[in-house]
Amino acid sequence: MAGTNRTQPPVTGGPRIILIEPQLAENIGATARAMLNCGLTDLAIVNPLQEFPHGRAVAMASGATEVLDTAQVYDSVEDAIADLNRVYATTARPRELTVRVATPRLAASELRNAWRAGEAVGVMFGPERSGMTNEHVALADTLISVPLNPAYSSLNLAQAVLLVAYEWFTADDETPAEQFVEPDTGPATKAELVAFFERFETALDTGGFFRTPEMRPAMVRNLRAMLQRGNLTEQEVRTLHGVVSCLTGSWRDTENQKRYREADK
Amino acid sequence: MAGTNRTQPPVTGGPRIILIEPQLAENIGATARAMLNCGLTDLAIVNPLQEFPHGRAVAMASGATEVLDTAQVYDSVEDAIADLNRVYATTARPRELTVRVATPRLAASELRNAWRAGEAVGVMFGPERSGMTNEHVALADTLISVPLNPAYSSLNLAQAVLLVAYEWFTADDETPAEQFVEPDTGPATKAELVAFFERFETALDTGGFFRTPEMRPAMVRNLRAMLQRGNLTEQEVRTLHGVVSCLTGSWRDTENQKRYREADK
Repeated sequence: MAGTNRTQPPVTGGPRIILIEPQLAENIGATARAMLNCGLTDLAIVNPLQEFPHGRAVAMASGATEVLDTAQVYDSVEDAIADLNRVYATTARPRELTVRVATPRLAASELRNAWRAGEAVGVMFGPERSGMTNEHVALADTLISVPLNPAYSSLNLAQAVLLVAYEWFTADDETPAEQFVEPDTGPATKAELVAFFERFETALDTGGFFRTPEMRPAMVRNLRAMLQRGNLTEQEVRTLHGVVSCLTGSWRDTENQKRYREADK
Repeated sequence: MAGTNRTQPPVTGGPRIILIEPQLAENIGATARAMLNCGLTDLAIVNPLQEFPHGRAVAMASGATEVLDTAQVYDSVEDAIADLNRVYATTARPRELTVRVATPRLAASELRNAWRAGEAVGVMFGPERSGMTNEHVALADTLISVPLNPAYSSLNLAQAVLLVAYEWFTADDETPAEQFVEPDTGPATKAELVAFFERFETALDTGGFFRTPEMRPAMVRNLRAMLQRGNLTEQEVRTLHGVVSCLTGSWRDTENQKRYREADK
């Protein structure tokens, strides 16, 4: 899914992402991408196994290098989260601690509320293979556990970051759940639709489509309901007029041709 | 996030994932992982650029090979979706078509409803670099567009699959938004809490904590509210009794030691 829309303002600001002892530089780069996909730019790295900055992190970051450029490296988790008010830890559930566990969706909602209230917030992620230690988990307020197939729940680090960051982003995103994209046209009015329906039904009458007068009302209703479900645009109604003309042979009428050819533009 | 829970039944069944002309075998493997993370196992591949099966797909699939083993390869998109009733296309918005565009969350909800109603459903993804052609988009009912930072919205193929699959999974997942994990104990009763509060406040009285009688009620209320927010467990209340004993020096009382040491288990 390629795409960069430069007409809308970038989305910035949000929780710090803290990577605890990440093992591979590529994963830091992939994390930077996942963060920037969701408008997050504050990255903290605690004791990376491979030196940082690292060429492979930059290569993987591919366009998200601004996140790497401003990333901070720390010696300890305590230092990385010192200025934060609220910290979540994303991890499989530890067994020896009494903890509160939230889904990414709930955590994102809470992070949004806290962030709007002026709190400094962050989300921690542990090393790729071993996961986060209980000592580090105990530095967090709440755990995030990602709901996944119990039979196969292993995610790589950047994917875990992406899912949490995506929930953060969508918690306050104004994209409507559903949109109709209609280049150069708009929805037809009911008058335009009914005018088409009547012409269409007349053509069907002429062709003997409705076997008996008794069956006609129900068949007409069904046809109209079917066509209405398509949420036809003005241009599409014109196209359908052209279709009817073509199929009935009235296409040969030049006036009709001119009028309905507009629908091809 | 490593983890496979073998005590819960695996989650299976759901939309077919259709990859149209994927360019890299690794991405097919990564897609298989993302699918199985979310309980999806029906994979269709249309005209893969690299031969399939491919060693690198298997290597990337890492534990999700069952998805590759049952994957079907097709010559055309039409063949891959022939038996489906409802198909979504995940892509950046095409400019020349009048289309309905849904977020992954809405699409997942619709897919769940359709699937429960017995419809065969699927989601298509286009080639990594070029994206899906308008011809293929026109074979779908609805587009899925993933809400992301407009300034940086490029996702790799497996990440796009993961986000859509994750929305599918969470649309019907029963994981509570919030849980308290309390190994070997349970929440304290209010009687246990109040008994602790009273002992605690008595110890504070003795130490002269409440400067004046007038200030005491409000300070006591604040302390109680603070402690209540922690949702203390039975065991934690016992631990706090031990803390108070320790700090006030009544720890030297052997009977107290025995009783409050239970809290260390």
